[in-house]
Amino acid sequence: MPKIVDHDARRQQVTAAAAAVIARDGLDGATMRAVATEAGCTTGLVTHYFAGRSELLIAVLQQVQGAAGDRIGAHLRGVARPGDALTAVVMEALPLDQARRDEWAVWIAFWGAAVGSPDLRDEHRRRYHDWRGLVRRLVVDAAAHGTVRPGLDLRSEADRLVALIDGLGLQAMLEPEVVGPRRMRALARAHLASLA
Amino acid sequence: MPKIVDHDARRQQVTAAAAAVIARDGLDGATMRAVATEAGCTTGLVTHYFAGRSELLIAVLQQVQGAAGDRIGAHLRGVARPGDALTAVVMEALPLDQARRDEWAVWIAFWGAAVGSPDLRDEHRRRYHDWRGLVRRLVVDAAAHGTVRPGLDLRSEADRLVALIDGLGLQAMLEPEVVGPRRMRALARAHLASLA
Repeated sequence: MPKIVDHDARRQQVTAAAAAVIARDGLDGATMRAVATEAGCTTGLVTHYFAGRSELLIAVLQQVQGAAGDRIGAHLRGVARPGDALTAVVMEALPLDQARRDEWAVWIAFWGAAVGSPDLRDEHRRRYHDWRGLVRRLVVDAAAHGTVRPGLDLRSEADRLVALIDGLGLQAMLEPEVVGPRRMRALARAHLASLA
Repeated sequence: MPKIVDHDARRQQVTAAAAAVIARDGLDGATMRAVATEAGCTTGLVTHYFAGRSELLIAVLQQVQGAAGDRIGAHLRGVARPGDALTAVVMEALPLDQARRDEWAVWIAFWGAAVGSPDLRDEHRRRYHDWRGLVRRLVVDAAAHGTVRPGLDLRSEADRLVALIDGLGLQAMLEPEVVGPRRMRALARAHLASLA
């Protein structure tokens, strides 16, 4: 009987190893060999699943966004009042604990690489199309439920919020002693309060 | 008579070449060889001035920040009313033209690399200490001249502004079709108006 290999599980395992290497050593450290070492497999196996670093990086990003998407989905189902979903999702999107810091490390490495790569920029565009769409819907919901005041340009507010989250997360990753979790929460809350 | 070489000028020329390569091909493309080709010199000359990529990247960042600092200094000297300096500096900091887009490409590549590098994070921290200090002073000035309303937490407003600029610039670089120059200006103006 031939050995049965769960290819999806293996691909996921290699992807998770790559995410761990990027979070620890940055994208420069995430060579095919380093990922193989982390995953406890051969470099050949890594290159079997991923033709190159771009492909591997996109898989890592998809895994990271999938995990964040699952947590955000739980918030959307779990909030008591519809107007509270916006705050819950904004807080979830920030790197407030180690798991999210690891995810943010992947995002920032990805942005750095995307600047010089049309393929990675396309991937970013797809991810941000969805993210922007979600934030816009939540801002509209919040306005409908009175947690965002009437008269604001909701599309602009959503875009401003997306920009603020990226900027805050970036600062928290690069200057954690200036923008720690408490400061990040306070700034995000102050921003949301300014919309109320 | 020995040949006279202007080492500073040569070092600057290599740094400018590295900036051009990063803006065009990203950090991954900025090998010592690619920088040498761009500068029209030997790889040996590049490694004579810069021991490694980190050192070269830091020099590029310093050059880029120096150029931005010069333009910002001109705004600070040139504004008619002191309260207007904040708006002028915020607009100057955004990637609204090709020269600034090239500078932003360096910044974003740098952030991506800094996530996995304590040395580069230290460099970022030094740059942001100065930048944050300037924005805080300008917000305090704007409050003193009535372009920011009393009662706001000025330190928080400065930090929120720094985060917003980073987020907007990042989006403009990665999704120029969503956040173009006009949109960036409008969002920055809307944010500043919300402080007035």
